[in-house]
Amino acid sequence: MRTAVLVEPTEFELQDRSEPSPGPDDVLVAIRDVGICGSDVHYYEHGRIGDYVVEDPLVLGHESAGEVVAVGENVTGLEAGDRVALEPGVPCRRCAHCKRGDYHLCEDVTFMATPPHDGAFAEYVSWPADFAYELPDSVSTAEGALCEPLSVGIHACRRGDVGTGDTVLVTGAGPIGLLVMEAARAAGATDVIVTDVVAEKLSLAAERGADVTVDVTETDLESAVEEYTDGVGADVVVEASGAEPSIRSTLDAVRRGGTVVLVGLADEATVPFDVLEVIDNEIDVHGSFRYKNTYDAAVDLLADGVVDVAGIIDFESSLDAIDDAFQRAMEPAVVKGMITFES
Amino acid sequence: MRTAVLVEPTEFELQDRSEPSPGPDDVLVAIRDVGICGSDVHYYEHGRIGDYVVEDPLVLGHESAGEVVAVGENVTGLEAGDRVALEPGVPCRRCAHCKRGDYHLCEDVTFMATPPHDGAFAEYVSWPADFAYELPDSVSTAEGALCEPLSVGIHACRRGDVGTGDTVLVTGAGPIGLLVMEAARAAGATDVIVTDVVAEKLSLAAERGADVTVDVTETDLESAVEEYTDGVGADVVVEASGAEPSIRSTLDAVRRGGTVVLVGLADEATVPFDVLEVIDNEIDVHGSFRYKNTYDAAVDLLADGVVDVAGIIDFESSLDAIDDAFQRAMEPAVVKGMITFES
Amino acid sequence: MRTAVLVEPTEFELQDRSEPSPGPDDVLVAIRDVGICGSDVHYYEHGRIGDYVVEDPLVLGHESAGEVVAVGENVTGLEAGDRVALEPGVPCRRCAHCKRGDYHLCEDVTFMATPPHDGAFAEYVSWPADFAYELPDSVSTAEGALCEPLSVGIHACRRGDVGTGDTVLVTGAGPIGLLVMEAARAAGATDVIVTDVVAEKLSLAAERGADVTVDVTETDLESAVEEYTDGVGADVVVEASGAEPSIRSTLDAVRRGGTVVLVGLADEATVPFDVLEVIDNEIDVHGSFRYKNTYDAAVDLLADGVVDVAGIIDFESSLDAIDDAFQRAMEPAVVKGMITFES
Amino acid sequence: MRTAVLVEPTEFELQDRSEPSPGPDDVLVAIRDVGICGSDVHYYEHGRIGDYVVEDPLVLGHESAGEVVAVGENVTGLEAGDRVALEPGVPCRRCAHCKRGDYHLCEDVTFMATPPHDGAFAEYVSWPADFAYELPDSVSTAEGALCEPLSVGIHACRRGDVGTGDTVLVTGAGPIGLLVMEAARAAGATDVIVTDVVAEKLSLAAERGADVTVDVTETDLESAVEEYTDGVGADVVVEASGAEPSIRSTLDAVRRGGTVVLVGLADEATVPFDVLEVIDNEIDVHGSFRYKNTYDAAVDLLADGVVDVAGIIDFESSLDAIDDAFQRAMEPAVVKGMITFES
Repeated sequence: MRTAVLVEPTEFELQDRSEPSPGPDDVLVAIRDVGICGSDVHYYEHGRIGDYVVEDPLVLGHESAGEVVAVGENVTGLEAGDRVALEPGVPCRRCAHCKRGDYHLCEDVTFMATPPHDGAFAEYVSWPADFAYELPDSVSTAEGALCEPLSVGIHACRRGDVGTGDTVLVTGAGPIGLLVMEAARAAGATDVIVTDVVAEKLSLAAERGADVTVDVTETDLESAVEEYTDGVGADVVVEASGAEPSIRSTLDAVRRGGTVVLVGLADEATVPFDVLEVIDNEIDVHGSFRYKNTYDAAVDLLADGVVDVAGIIDFESSLDAIDDAFQRAMEPAVVKGMITFES
Repeated sequence: MRTAVLVEPTEFELQDRSEPSPGPDDVLVAIRDVGICGSDVHYYEHGRIGDYVVEDPLVLGHESAGEVVAVGENVTGLEAGDRVALEPGVPCRRCAHCKRGDYHLCEDVTFMATPPHDGAFAEYVSWPADFAYELPDSVSTAEGALCEPLSVGIHACRRGDVGTGDTVLVTGAGPIGLLVMEAARAAGATDVIVTDVVAEKLSLAAERGADVTVDVTETDLESAVEEYTDGVGADVVVEASGAEPSIRSTLDAVRRGGTVVLVGLADEATVPFDVLEVIDNEIDVHGSFRYKNTYDAAVDLLADGVVDVAGIIDFESSLDAIDDAFQRAMEPAVVKGMITFES
Repeated sequence: MRTAVLVEPTEFELQDRSEPSPGPDDVLVAIRDVGICGSDVHYYEHGRIGDYVVEDPLVLGHESAGEVVAVGENVTGLEAGDRVALEPGVPCRRCAHCKRGDYHLCEDVTFMATPPHDGAFAEYVSWPADFAYELPDSVSTAEGALCEPLSVGIHACRRGDVGTGDTVLVTGAGPIGLLVMEAARAAGATDVIVTDVVAEKLSLAAERGADVTVDVTETDLESAVEEYTDGVGADVVVEASGAEPSIRSTLDAVRRGGTVVLVGLADEATVPFDVLEVIDNEIDVHGSFRYKNTYDAAVDLLADGVVDVAGIIDFESSLDAIDDAFQRAMEPAVVKGMITFES
Repeated sequence: MRTAVLVEPTEFELQDRSEPSPGPDDVLVAIRDVGICGSDVHYYEHGRIGDYVVEDPLVLGHESAGEVVAVGENVTGLEAGDRVALEPGVPCRRCAHCKRGDYHLCEDVTFMATPPHDGAFAEYVSWPADFAYELPDSVSTAEGALCEPLSVGIHACRRGDVGTGDTVLVTGAGPIGLLVMEAARAAGATDVIVTDVVAEKLSLAAERGADVTVDVTETDLESAVEEYTDGVGADVVVEASGAEPSIRSTLDAVRRGGTVVLVGLADEATVPFDVLEVIDNEIDVHGSFRYKNTYDAAVDLLADGVVDVAGIIDFESSLDAIDDAFQRAMEPAVVKGMITFES
């Protein structure tokens, strides 16, 4: 099968690999669509993300969906011909985190496209059936692939306990910020404020229903939030930019007793934080890591047309043109590129 | 001021009463719209609801909104000319319930139209300013009045912890059931099943977006839910009919580990309940009483157009015609009647 | 190995069976102590519990602890010589319940001594290592075996969200009721009221620290609770008797806004329940089924001496005398009998 | 009445003021015991805490208890002769925070000994009856006064959701740290690790039941926690020192998915914080501000003898010797000084 392998930074090699055979609890999936994530681009450019170093050739891609072509002997509920989205992290199922339902915190997770585990830029992937989610006819495989970043948004909103009538500030209008916004609306947020530093992204956020957009290179965020909320502050702030000034500003923008969710990966790990404000205003600051138990909800939201993921796709490309696609994905105004396979 | 007073069952008397004067923390409100609630009709017909007996002439009406005409000396944030919805229950502010934020459980609550407290079928009402919620231009006073039953729906969904992607069964398609459905959608429910025994109400539910409607006089509910949910059951069941068979059926329709919210007032207090099922399936059964901290959210949802309350109004009537209005409100297919005042 | 097999109601047969060999993720445990549970006695007497029917010879016993004698190749963290308590229910690890952390609700659970799965009245049991919990020197294997009923108590208290300063009513002073009391104290309950109909059990509850004991054959429970709580009611009621009058009384004894936890299995599945009281007082009624994620806490509480399980043991018996032991376990005043194996 | 008034930094003046008269909802309390809090000492030394500046003469003291000598006309449940602990913060009862039950976050709170509100170093205080908590015979007024810092501990543990079987790290063994430890034990923590830099305080913590004490001037905290918890980390970390290195270390000591509670007021507001660790390990960081709904629990825990507050008292002094008492309270090894009034 054709497989795009990152052999060294900025260099993909299209290899012919042997097709995997599914184990008894697995499904074999012919991949149809794979999103290009910021982490894929980061590995492509730098060969590493923090402590995760690409030492051996690696297959990238963890936002994927396709068509089941074979199922293992224990598999029920899925059969050849079904279209599925793949949840890319499979945990050990035995540790304390897994038993608590926090399987996303499992230390022994197999996560696609995170060294040493290969991802989905390949014609076929064999995957545990319980991490493959059937797509109804109304949801395309491109949308199915984007259940992954949508899951990040859903999980972040759950970590912030976003509910009916809430005012939510989302800092950063990249793919995660935009899908946090979708997830916040779906969870009942009635007021959404979005920030960024790129005008095109703010326009996109406005088109997609942000009540207010704030270009933080021009406007003071704290004042903007104060004005919009009559001095109260946002019920929930979801930090989706990873930028230090943005992280710091969350504490000024959230209301007393409100919640800040940190999801955007910071370039600088260590950010000066106003601890007295956290205490005096009794703020909850919640890290949000990947997601758990979100795929069923993501598929349902897409099937209902409640959220829109297709609208963030800027371009689609074939596996053969993956190098070009990654170059294009690095442009600042690009939100999401996809690799598509012919069926 | 003109006031409709229930002097004995089924008999209103239009009296001329003196206008109330607002205390230092109150607003004086010229009433514009008042919904006719099932409890109003019950007092009108029977002169009592359970232990609450109408012993003295009583002003009914607790779903109200109007225009502020004067404010007390301590009031900030509201002024004459503002349009407001009135939350009808004002608690003692001092008991353990109030301090826990469960002010709706306060035993010393002053609740409109519950003996001995008068309600809103009158030209003016003086009310604590912190229980008067300003309406933006986009929300009418008729909608403002219906923040009350919408609040019942929002609170019931909060009691059921309805969230993104949930499947919710609502038993009963009267005003509460329909607004529970609205609140459930707003909170992220992607699948809503609604039951009733009146075809017109089921049609209305279907028009308003129910995924499935079940006429329980014809169809077995448990089977219908099982089929729709692939044998899993509903994540949350909100019982909004008060009918004994419906109450009993909730335990068969909810999924293992799911939640049943009881909000519809039963005619018979004592219902045979399958306790073993509650234990074996580890079900949460939550009573839902009125609401707390819902009005801001209700107004925001209406302003956003996320929920629709106006669509459940069957007719509007003047205060002079209140007797006719109550007669009409008793017809089975009528969902909601309103009394409107000229401004 | 010697194994006590229930071949038909009230008849055990001591068989010589072949020793199990542990799979790669299992430990082989030489059993040291097994508690006799009410459900064991029920199968012994009646050959069934509800829909669970003993059709083939069955090994009873699910409250067990022993010594590891061999470990599978993947097992880390345990080795031969370690003393362990065995959690008797092993779930599928793949379904939605398992992924949510509600593994105790898994429909594909393998639960000891529940047809068709054999239990622990045998010299050796092979069991998944992640459901075997190491005991420190300060905790005996008899105590380790009673981590099982203690887990029922811990889980029930978690289901009731028992916390610091709470007043808890426990109806029923059998082994579950007494260990609910222990777990409630450990979770911060400062006032515990216990009911029963057997004087010896009430005496035991009083000795073990109940603030009030109520013999419900003589005293009106609602009045007793009202007096003790100055008319407020209990914050949490844990129903551990399964008796219909007791189940009904929970709604009168709990405070407005409080929680009733149902854990005692009712003889009659269908109990008349005052639905209006559930709504008017906004009560939470929570079924509590077995337990999840409790064994680590149970072992820690025993190691700390915070809870006492040894004190509920009435007698110990050998496997050879298992028939006599079951006869004795049926006496009303007996709380807990144990089968012990020589080491 | 005799009243100790801080007229300027480090200078108390004993004035004769007129006795307050209670309003209709108030009790008049003859003060018996008042604890000297770190914040009192800070005002005494510096005349300010952050933005709170002592501009006019101020009566300090907010940890108080005494005897009711008169009650307002609306007061029920308390009468002259009752001994009560006073909760020092009385909220507006009308804002969104108050209605949510977060009355401690009310912006219009009247808090004793916080400019411009006078505190309890006076013979009499008039206080709203619902913020006066009756003490049973088994609880002294000195213990009643210390319900205040105990409440800080209870609230911090609630903010960390400390529960049965948890391992809790408390950084700082001053009065707050020691009472956090008591509250954590009461809430079910089975393992408590305590840090400090003063040997006497660590000894006191060890005597009072800490499982491990760590002198962070000598021992690496992360390693110590890792060793004690077999590499897992603490379930909950409560930061009670306010020291920057300690605040930073919380993220290394907490387990993946665990909670850090910040309660110790930092000298430096801005602390470098490892944001990536918060995200990758999905940590909850919760500010904890004062307390709400804790006094009933605090009194119950004291009445039960479950927690010990008397043991942290180093000395008692009369109002006449308040200057000396404050000097002594500034010594590093002193945990708690009290001012007592003759009855």
